[in-house]
Amino acid sequence: MEIALEEAAAAAARGEVPVGAVVTDADGTVLARAGNEVEARNDPTAHAEILAMRAAAQRTGSPRLPGCTLTVTLEPCPMCAQAASFFRVKRVVFGAYDPKGGGVEHGARIFAASSCHHTPEIIGGLRESDCAALLREFFVARR
Amino acid sequence: MEIALEEAAAAAARGEVPVGAVVTDADGTVLARAGNEVEARNDPTAHAEILAMRAAAQRTGSPRLPGCTLTVTLEPCPMCAQAASFFRVKRVVFGAYDPKGGGVEHGARIFAASSCHHTPEIIGGLRESDCAALLREFFVARR
Repeated sequence: MEIALEEAAAAAARGEVPVGAVVTDADGTVLARAGNEVEARNDPTAHAEILAMRAAAQRTGSPRLPGCTLTVTLEPCPMCAQAASFFRVKRVVFGAYDPKGGGVEHGARIFAASSCHHTPEIIGGLRESDCAALLREFFVARR
Repeated sequence: MEIALEEAAAAAARGEVPVGAVVTDADGTVLARAGNEVEARNDPTAHAEILAMRAAAQRTGSPRLPGCTLTVTLEPCPMCAQAASFFRVKRVVFGAYDPKGGGVEHGARIFAASSCHHTPEIIGGLRESDCAALLREFFVARR
């Protein structure tokens, strides 16, 4: 989560909503890390999770990431949660909960839906206050 | 839908699950078209809808596609449905229904969830049998 927080802080410095993600393999080796790039890429699908999982798949040469953990500073949205299912990650660890836009513990609850055919293990709230603080500071500064 | 069907057929010819998508603007001008490229890109997020909307956004220079219609041969999955919401498309038109993996009329029902903050107009079942036939033939041939 330390790496994901670094990526989130770097995203904030670029004017992006501060969310960061990292994909690690079964040994804990970092396969890919990314921050939010929605503004830079002019692409609302360029969430940190999608970028990190896509990069990890390119690195491993497989579209599936079994045994891997996706760690992200914010509860994934429904798009990213479904992507994590498609990438077959073993575990999703997230920091801050997102009652408005989250799709894991809130809203669409992707992994509980019948449209989900692979459900990762979920750990929410890891370093929650650090992750939430980054987001809060970013939005306060923008007001 | 004719263009989306062409893209789906082209995807099948490449060994991809035959799904095709097209984004048109308010005047009906085609902004982007794409077929499924999951296998070619080694990327389970490379669904036709995501590729077409991303290309349309690059073409218009905006991450939002207001007034635009996403037309796709298969009911979007939860990932693509959420992406359509993020891209702010006005309308989603799809062909075949997907009771197993669809996320619009089935499963996560993305647009009905509280995590969805922009709901497009939905038209399902347009040229349903043509769209479904392409998928059926593809999977029969693979058996």
